[in-house]
Amino acid sequence: MEFTTTEIANLVGGELKGSGSVKIRTVAKIEEASEGAIAFLANPKYENYLYSTLASAVLISRSFIPKEEVKTTLILVDDPYSSFTTLLEEYSRLVTFAKVGIEQPSFTGENSFSGKNHYRGAFSYVGNNCRIGDNVKIYPNAYIGDNVQIGNNTIIYPGVKIYANTVIGNYCTLHAGAVIGSDGFGFAPQKDGSYKTIPQIGNVIIEDHVSIGANTVIDCATMGSTVIHEGVKLDNLIQVAHNVEIGKHTVIAAQTGISGSTRIGDYCMIGGQVGFAGHLKIASRSSFGAQSGVGNNVTEEGKSFLGSPAFDYSKYFRSAAVFRKLPEVLKKIEELEEKVITLGPVEKGR
Amino acid sequence: MEFTTTEIANLVGGELKGSGSVKIRTVAKIEEASEGAIAFLANPKYENYLYSTLASAVLISRSFIPKEEVKTTLILVDDPYSSFTTLLEEYSRLVTFAKVGIEQPSFTGENSFSGKNHYRGAFSYVGNNCRIGDNVKIYPNAYIGDNVQIGNNTIIYPGVKIYANTVIGNYCTLHAGAVIGSDGFGFAPQKDGSYKTIPQIGNVIIEDHVSIGANTVIDCATMGSTVIHEGVKLDNLIQVAHNVEIGKHTVIAAQTGISGSTRIGDYCMIGGQVGFAGHLKIASRSSFGAQSGVGNNVTEEGKSFLGSPAFDYSKYFRSAAVFRKLPEVLKKIEELEEKVITLGPVEKGR
Amino acid sequence: MEFTTTEIANLVGGELKGSGSVKIRTVAKIEEASEGAIAFLANPKYENYLYSTLASAVLISRSFIPKEEVKTTLILVDDPYSSFTTLLEEYSRLVTFAKVGIEQPSFTGENSFSGKNHYRGAFSYVGNNCRIGDNVKIYPNAYIGDNVQIGNNTIIYPGVKIYANTVIGNYCTLHAGAVIGSDGFGFAPQKDGSYKTIPQIGNVIIEDHVSIGANTVIDCATMGSTVIHEGVKLDNLIQVAHNVEIGKHTVIAAQTGISGSTRIGDYCMIGGQVGFAGHLKIASRSSFGAQSGVGNNVTEEGKSFLGSPAFDYSKYFRSAAVFRKLPEVLKKIEELEEKVITLGPVEKGR
Repeated sequence: MEFTTTEIANLVGGELKGSGSVKIRTVAKIEEASEGAIAFLANPKYENYLYSTLASAVLISRSFIPKEEVKTTLILVDDPYSSFTTLLEEYSRLVTFAKVGIEQPSFTGENSFSGKNHYRGAFSYVGNNCRIGDNVKIYPNAYIGDNVQIGNNTIIYPGVKIYANTVIGNYCTLHAGAVIGSDGFGFAPQKDGSYKTIPQIGNVIIEDHVSIGANTVIDCATMGSTVIHEGVKLDNLIQVAHNVEIGKHTVIAAQTGISGSTRIGDYCMIGGQVGFAGHLKIASRSSFGAQSGVGNNVTEEGKSFLGSPAFDYSKYFRSAAVFRKLPEVLKKIEELEEKVITLGPVEKGR
Repeated sequence: MEFTTTEIANLVGGELKGSGSVKIRTVAKIEEASEGAIAFLANPKYENYLYSTLASAVLISRSFIPKEEVKTTLILVDDPYSSFTTLLEEYSRLVTFAKVGIEQPSFTGENSFSGKNHYRGAFSYVGNNCRIGDNVKIYPNAYIGDNVQIGNNTIIYPGVKIYANTVIGNYCTLHAGAVIGSDGFGFAPQKDGSYKTIPQIGNVIIEDHVSIGANTVIDCATMGSTVIHEGVKLDNLIQVAHNVEIGKHTVIAAQTGISGSTRIGDYCMIGGQVGFAGHLKIASRSSFGAQSGVGNNVTEEGKSFLGSPAFDYSKYFRSAAVFRKLPEVLKKIEELEEKVITLGPVEKGR
Repeated sequence: MEFTTTEIANLVGGELKGSGSVKIRTVAKIEEASEGAIAFLANPKYENYLYSTLASAVLISRSFIPKEEVKTTLILVDDPYSSFTTLLEEYSRLVTFAKVGIEQPSFTGENSFSGKNHYRGAFSYVGNNCRIGDNVKIYPNAYIGDNVQIGNNTIIYPGVKIYANTVIGNYCTLHAGAVIGSDGFGFAPQKDGSYKTIPQIGNVIIEDHVSIGANTVIDCATMGSTVIHEGVKLDNLIQVAHNVEIGKHTVIAAQTGISGSTRIGDYCMIGGQVGFAGHLKIASRSSFGAQSGVGNNVTEEGKSFLGSPAFDYSKYFRSAAVFRKLPEVLKKIEELEEKVITLGPVEKGR
């Protein structure tokens, strides 16, 4: 991808100071930028880099007055950081949606259809009766089973595996190696101590604007649906068991696990390596610190938790502080005991 | 897949009340069912749904006497729930084993053979000298290295990676993204602080009726075999290190990790996110609560553990209850100390 | 792979006692070896196996004097264990680097080049503008995005996914299902409680002699690079977030997670299921016990930590010992309180 400084100035509504034909291929920090990159200067303490940077262009405030000669092309804007973010988003969008067309060999089953501006990587597989929207990008080695529905503008990265009957919304991102719709972990104990598999015939529903991290797993429901609501962001290596429901705009960090049939509310914030037991109901706007172990329902909204088993966040910290000095506390008690024993006979002798 | 109500009545040994030519395509709960689905009514408190359900057929007890008019087709059986389970299993079996034939392109090395009713998904890879049994289903993008043996009726879901020399039994299920036989994590520290790789030349043996979850990893043995015995059920994202042995009918929940050379007994129940240190021996019928950290051998059978480090399950809960009020406990001790100091001079003054 | 006993004797600088034309196909423990295997005898307590082993050859000390007749071929060396290790390494190296050639179908984009002795498995994908060194082995179903650089002698196992712009050094091993360069987990909270994706435009740099475990994930940097330095060994199912830096020769066990922008020093040893918060700086030669939760910087080198939140390793064990008896400790305090109350009135009465 390549832009001229004129094109960038137009994109961010900036004023060009220098050549408009400089070619920009990437974005970088001002102190690390090399030729072909555009950087920004917002914080005055980085000003010195402006005079030595190798960046081909720099976004800078309209009010900035240079103390030395500037060799690079400048683009004057109201808010350099905000303009840079706009640029990043545009760059990222273009890179992400650049791929178009069908690479061969790829496999498409019967009665499956895709919308326009579709990308299909080589060795990607789409089963029978699938409905895939516009601008959907399916990267190489991805697998999509039968009867899957995918909305518009969704990106399926390499090696994602989507089981049959999954429904995915618009503007979702599924990162490499994610597995959607694998069998729930359901086994009925038998009299001889062995286990019989409980058939898992439900599916997974993922609503719009959901992001699923690399190698994260979402199991299908035993019956009905495992549901990931609008705007949920799941990090890498997360486990979501059968019949779980995650409320809208909840964010979950890496390696957290949610057991079967638990319902997480809306707008929750969940740290890394947290574990939730099964069949819980967690109120909206709850937050859980990293490595929490959650075994009980949370009924009140907006509370914070920590620990395993988890309880009130700040109380946990106070308990953990005492935990550190438990050996000293124990010694103190033993000394007290001795003192009291010494005192004891006085009473008796009375 | 489509059945008539007559076919279903025959399958479950039921008596038809209504049309025998109604077409059933799926199963559902009575309160959620739509046209084309079969549901069941076992619990009397759901009776009202019977009169309003959209289900095309309902399994119901022979002794049931409706209070209102029933519009849907009924199949009368002795035990509706048990008949529904039979139906689910049959449905699930049919869906699972429906795929037959070789999709192209797929890759098969030299001197590798498969049994009858084989399914090979597109972009699946089978190396040299493999022996694959009857009714084995290998989904798209799965990889099977050289010299692998797989028994009958085993299902390898999309993107499973099986390293060379692995041996897998009958009626096993390996879910998407599982990795079997990757190198054990063995590195010999060198004098300069760096590490030299210890060659890992063993393999993995998986016995019959084993289920392996999505993105779970089982490393090969350094020498000899990592062994997963008959009937073991492993959930998603589990780590099984080199030379581990897991006893028959042990069940392990998601994200648990077992370090090198540890031997887990038979019929154990292990929660999610549990960690086992290396070289342990865990007695049969042990159970471990979620997030336990196990650093010692368990020699007595049938005990329950919790905590990190793990100890007796119910004792852990009692300790955890005190942990929550440690700040108050500490305060109490400090008050005691003060009181004792106040008392102290009395003794001294004597 | 097959060697004669003469070839093996030459490889380890040993003296042959018996036939030089015996064919060796594998290595094994002396008590488990079968025909075609070579074993070793170092520990005198295993001597009895020498007389009954089915091994076709045994490595043994030059100074060894047998008590009974030995039927198998012997190779006399100075240090049998060390010679066996040499053999293992050679065997492993040959197996690993045996694969050469391009299996079809595989996909290579425009302007991508590979060195000599290259192996490309079927259904592997290499994007545009990649530079791949000599002796690189890319197994089936692996994905390598655009602009990726890979040094010499690096092995990419099946189903590895490498995102665009990743740089990988020499002598690295990436195990099956590993994901390198997925988007960092960056989302900016919006006023309405939803999240906006922060573009992730950096990359991942992996230096020489790095080993990455199966299904481990390393996210790309937001800007700049996530860096894994020389000689780092990462086990399976590890999460490395955006902009993390891991110092040289640090070893990390399975299922550990490192949050964004944290910098781990050199020569650290990190157990399994450990969690690091973001933006930390961890001094070199630190070690962390399994399941530790690290929330603070470590400034002094060479210290050991345990617990969640983690603190000094041996202090943690002492606190954990008291934790186990907290209910008894609480009882003791209550008894003390009672005694002091009994004493109390005495003082008052005085």
